[in-house]
Amino acid sequence: MSQAAPILLTPGPLTTSDRTRQAMLRDWGSWDADFNQITARIRKEVLNIVHGTGTHECVPLQGSGTFSVEAAIGTLVPRNGHVLVPSNGAYCQRLAKICKVLGRRLTTIDYTEEKQVSPADVDRALAADPTITHVAVVHCETGAGVLNPLHEIALVVAKHGRGLIIDAMSSFGALEIDARRTPFDAVVAASGKCLEGVPGMGFVVIKRSTLEKCEGNCHSLSMDLYDQWVYMEKTTQWRFTPPTHVVAALDTAIAQYVEEGGLPARGGRYARNCKALIDGLATLGFRSFLDPAIQAPIIVTFHAPDDANYDFKTFYQEVKKRGYILYPGKLTQVETFRVGCMGHFGDAGIPGAVAAIADTLKAMGIRQVTAAEPA
Amino acid sequence: MSQAAPILLTPGPLTTSDRTRQAMLRDWGSWDADFNQITARIRKEVLNIVHGTGTHECVPLQGSGTFSVEAAIGTLVPRNGHVLVPSNGAYCQRLAKICKVLGRRLTTIDYTEEKQVSPADVDRALAADPTITHVAVVHCETGAGVLNPLHEIALVVAKHGRGLIIDAMSSFGALEIDARRTPFDAVVAASGKCLEGVPGMGFVVIKRSTLEKCEGNCHSLSMDLYDQWVYMEKTTQWRFTPPTHVVAALDTAIAQYVEEGGLPARGGRYARNCKALIDGLATLGFRSFLDPAIQAPIIVTFHAPDDANYDFKTFYQEVKKRGYILYPGKLTQVETFRVGCMGHFGDAGIPGAVAAIADTLKAMGIRQVTAAEPA
Ligand SMILES: Cc1ncc(COP(=O)(O)O)c(C=O)c1O
Ligand SMILES: Cc1ncc(COP(=O)(O)O)c(C=O)c1O
Repeated sequence: MSQAAPILLTPGPLTTSDRTRQAMLRDWGSWDADFNQITARIRKEVLNIVHGTGTHECVPLQGSGTFSVEAAIGTLVPRNGHVLVPSNGAYCQRLAKICKVLGRRLTTIDYTEEKQVSPADVDRALAADPTITHVAVVHCETGAGVLNPLHEIALVVAKHGRGLIIDAMSSFGALEIDARRTPFDAVVAASGKCLEGVPGMGFVVIKRSTLEKCEGNCHSLSMDLYDQWVYMEKTTQWRFTPPTHVVAALDTAIAQYVEEGGLPARGGRYARNCKALIDGLATLGFRSFLDPAIQAPIIVTFHAPDDANYDFKTFYQEVKKRGYILYPGKLTQVETFRVGCMGHFGDAGIPGAVAAIADTLKAMGIRQVTAAEPA
Repeated sequence: MSQAAPILLTPGPLTTSDRTRQAMLRDWGSWDADFNQITARIRKEVLNIVHGTGTHECVPLQGSGTFSVEAAIGTLVPRNGHVLVPSNGAYCQRLAKICKVLGRRLTTIDYTEEKQVSPADVDRALAADPTITHVAVVHCETGAGVLNPLHEIALVVAKHGRGLIIDAMSSFGALEIDARRTPFDAVVAASGKCLEGVPGMGFVVIKRSTLEKCEGNCHSLSMDLYDQWVYMEKTTQWRFTPPTHVVAALDTAIAQYVEEGGLPARGGRYARNCKALIDGLATLGFRSFLDPAIQAPIIVTFHAPDDANYDFKTFYQEVKKRGYILYPGKLTQVETFRVGCMGHFGDAGIPGAVAAIADTLKAMGIRQVTAAEPA
């Protein structure tokens, strides 16, 4: 059963497999043991992926990824806590905004969006301010596509004895996070990203010894991960109605993830997609925005064509007509567009997208693709 | 394409139609215009159901129904607000708990679970305490299945000039709420209830003149309905990734709702189910827990058999083997079980469930079904 829909080259929701979508063809009672086994299996497999079995807990949560990020901050950071957010893009800014709305004290280290976060800067900030209780970082900053040096940051945070909360939304399952060597309190991700499920739930992997101390921190009933965990451990059920079909799809998606070969295979496939994409679009004259050394193999930002005939809306529509959905840029200054490397679309996906873009350039009469080098 | 799964006689997640589940077989880009049209259509149809077009706004939200209830309280009630919760069951208690966690001042009027909320009590409470800013009520208290007198309560609240927030989770679309005659600020419901979609999103219908004043109230970024509304009006998109497949399924479910004949047809079907269920189980000796005058046609609580051979777990398993999923009681005192009247299971559903229960009684050797009348 193949879908007539375009291939999504977006960083979630993404293209899922037929098998994953077909797992949604059944209704489940959310109190029923058959369903609770699915929840338990997902929790176990997610822990496996980060090698957190025995030391960490996986707490799933209804809602989009942002709900889980907010839940992690709200549950782990005490009301009088102080969060440091090293910020190099839109999702770092969202972390900062969450801290503000939740009334947690906030300090940021601000970078421009083409730069990595620097572990040395984090080190200095923590040394300078002992009131900082937690650092919250984004692993792959999906705004421009920068891979932040998570392991090095984690070691710095651990050295200072502070807590670490990682937004690994767009990297979890594709880029390594190993709880045995990278110390953290919480890693946040969601169903509809690199695990290639459908969107509708997130999950947070939390160090058990940390989680045990989180009772009463949370600003919200629905997003209290401590409560969710305690209830789930006691009953095997979710506290409030789970998105049963989304959960079943994630379970099936994880089975395929394991069959594919787990993280090395998934990460390898995305890296191949990323290379094919950058190389393919380079032949058309497109320049990617980031230094290749800090480019995550997840989503690539390209400079928009420097041609009077270009506008993103038409470009998007024309590429979509040819079967592919792109993503607008999420940058503040430069005109760009973004192409995701993630999702279930097979080896022909990226070459197909490159061909669709080539075709679109012709149809739009765009000749000047390469912008003048920035001064 | 029929599912081999048991029929769910539970108050959501419930049994959905094949057509509704098949709407999940396609992936959607959450920024794409095709998907945004689906969101717009759902918002419009939901407003239609309560006759709120022009005066009210429908704001959808990711997560389970409780997330939308919490979002409504958090967004509508200012931080120094004071909420009155007339409470006759588990979901009223959840409303109260949300107020506590959110730090909103709370007063309750407490009833036992077989009683309706009394509009006269609400009237007295509001007259006695002018600091109360909002009343939060549950329309159908799914705990025992009591239908609360919503219209009369709403008139009382309006008379006192206070705000009204209605948890209509298990009634929306089946039991009438007409914004033209029943004044309210917000009505909360979810995808996987009487509209017969799959679980994973909620929505809140809010009076526009109220919503316009809600900026900055909310304790949460993810659950800020004001922000969600402003962003959605500006961009046609959800602020954070929507559960695309759940949204598509709800859209298809609503189309079927309209084809069936809307609220009178849906409510009528559930009422027929409810009568068939109570009558059918009465022939086996089962007594329902509530006075028929206050029984909502949504879920029925039955006294458990008064027989040494009965235990709920085995009873549940045996009925499940025969193709039906029941629900445990959610009462504090009496031993009960619950059977839902909602969901897409056709005219044979209830007689089939009654037969399965009859069969189970035999298999378990239960003879004494009718408990002694309570003193
Ligand atoms: C790094 C990162 N954090 C957070 C989010 C937010 O997730 P959601 O849109 O599911 O709320 C995203 C979404 O792409 C992301 O890439
Ligand atoms: C009246 C009422 N309120 C709230 C809820 C909670 O909804 P959810 O379980 O989706 O969070 C329910 C669920 O059945 C309900 O019946």
